[in-house]
Amino acid sequence: MKKQKIKHGLVIVNTGNGKGKSTSAFGMVLRSWGRGFQVCVVQFIKAETGQWGEVKAAKKLGINWFAIGDGFTWTSKDMDETVARALQGWEVAKEKISSRNYDLIVLDEFTYALHFGWLDTKQVIDWLKANKPEDMHLVITGRDAPAELIEYADLVTEMMEVKHPFQKGIQAQAGIEY
Amino acid sequence: MKKQKIKHGLVIVNTGNGKGKSTSAFGMVLRSWGRGFQVCVVQFIKAETGQWGEVKAAKKLGINWFAIGDGFTWTSKDMDETVARALQGWEVAKEKISSRNYDLIVLDEFTYALHFGWLDTKQVIDWLKANKPEDMHLVITGRDAPAELIEYADLVTEMMEVKHPFQKGIQAQAGIEY
Repeated sequence: MKKQKIKHGLVIVNTGNGKGKSTSAFGMVLRSWGRGFQVCVVQFIKAETGQWGEVKAAKKLGINWFAIGDGFTWTSKDMDETVARALQGWEVAKEKISSRNYDLIVLDEFTYALHFGWLDTKQVIDWLKANKPEDMHLVITGRDAPAELIEYADLVTEMMEVKHPFQKGIQAQAGIEY
Repeated sequence: MKKQKIKHGLVIVNTGNGKGKSTSAFGMVLRSWGRGFQVCVVQFIKAETGQWGEVKAAKKLGINWFAIGDGFTWTSKDMDETVARALQGWEVAKEKISSRNYDLIVLDEFTYALHFGWLDTKQVIDWLKANKPEDMHLVITGRDAPAELIEYADLVTEMMEVKHPFQKGIQAQAGIEY
């Protein structure tokens, strides 16, 4: 079991339609890693392709990284598969949270599983209230964070899109958006 | 000189009164580092104390990190010193941008120097238009980004505070906020 380093383990939610929800979580990963914290990331949407900048970085840094999605793009043909993977992701998350091995756990794009009702928000929050270690930070990202999750969280930021390069026809950029 | 890796070097601004402006920039640092990009960070407000999680991480990762502030806390007694350091930071930034050695440069909390008129926003933008390499991403963070900067930028996100643990009397947390 890890040594206690954290007094007030926060529940942090990054939501909104703008950029920076996951990216800011990865900034916390970097900060925490810099402090010698034990860090774990569970990605609910992205597939483990090894092509993402953050996954490449995590491998180099020895961060536990689980990308359990199937690359769901909102036009997925096999929703059963997408839902099954989200449920599997929550099982992984529960195991990692219960293990007390981590100082920081990120559940990246987890809100979708709640927003679309693949998981019951109240049950998830009740489980977290009963099981999240006091000395562990938990970061949850994704659009449309349910009101109950915002109520439960300590720190909530909404990322608002002011201007996006897609408007100029510029594609997503490696190293910046993935 | 670096090899060209980037086609559309973006100008990215993270502004607003919420969390995640710098943290999201550090997430891009992590992603870019994961891709083998050359990364440089110039911090305009924070002093180089070696105590910040991100500075500890950067040292371990071999990222060029310049914290040239004096720890300015908005109640600084010696504003001349604060302004002088901001001007010095801009000289460092210009040198690093012109060097063409970097794929990603972060000017952290740079907007304050513009917002408070320590630097002339139009002159700064004119300089960037003339000198920022096409194949380099530039990330600028801080509250109160001037309208001219938002106009110039490709990708602008406003971080809005929805809920903050200070409201519950919980202090800023290591690994999360610094």
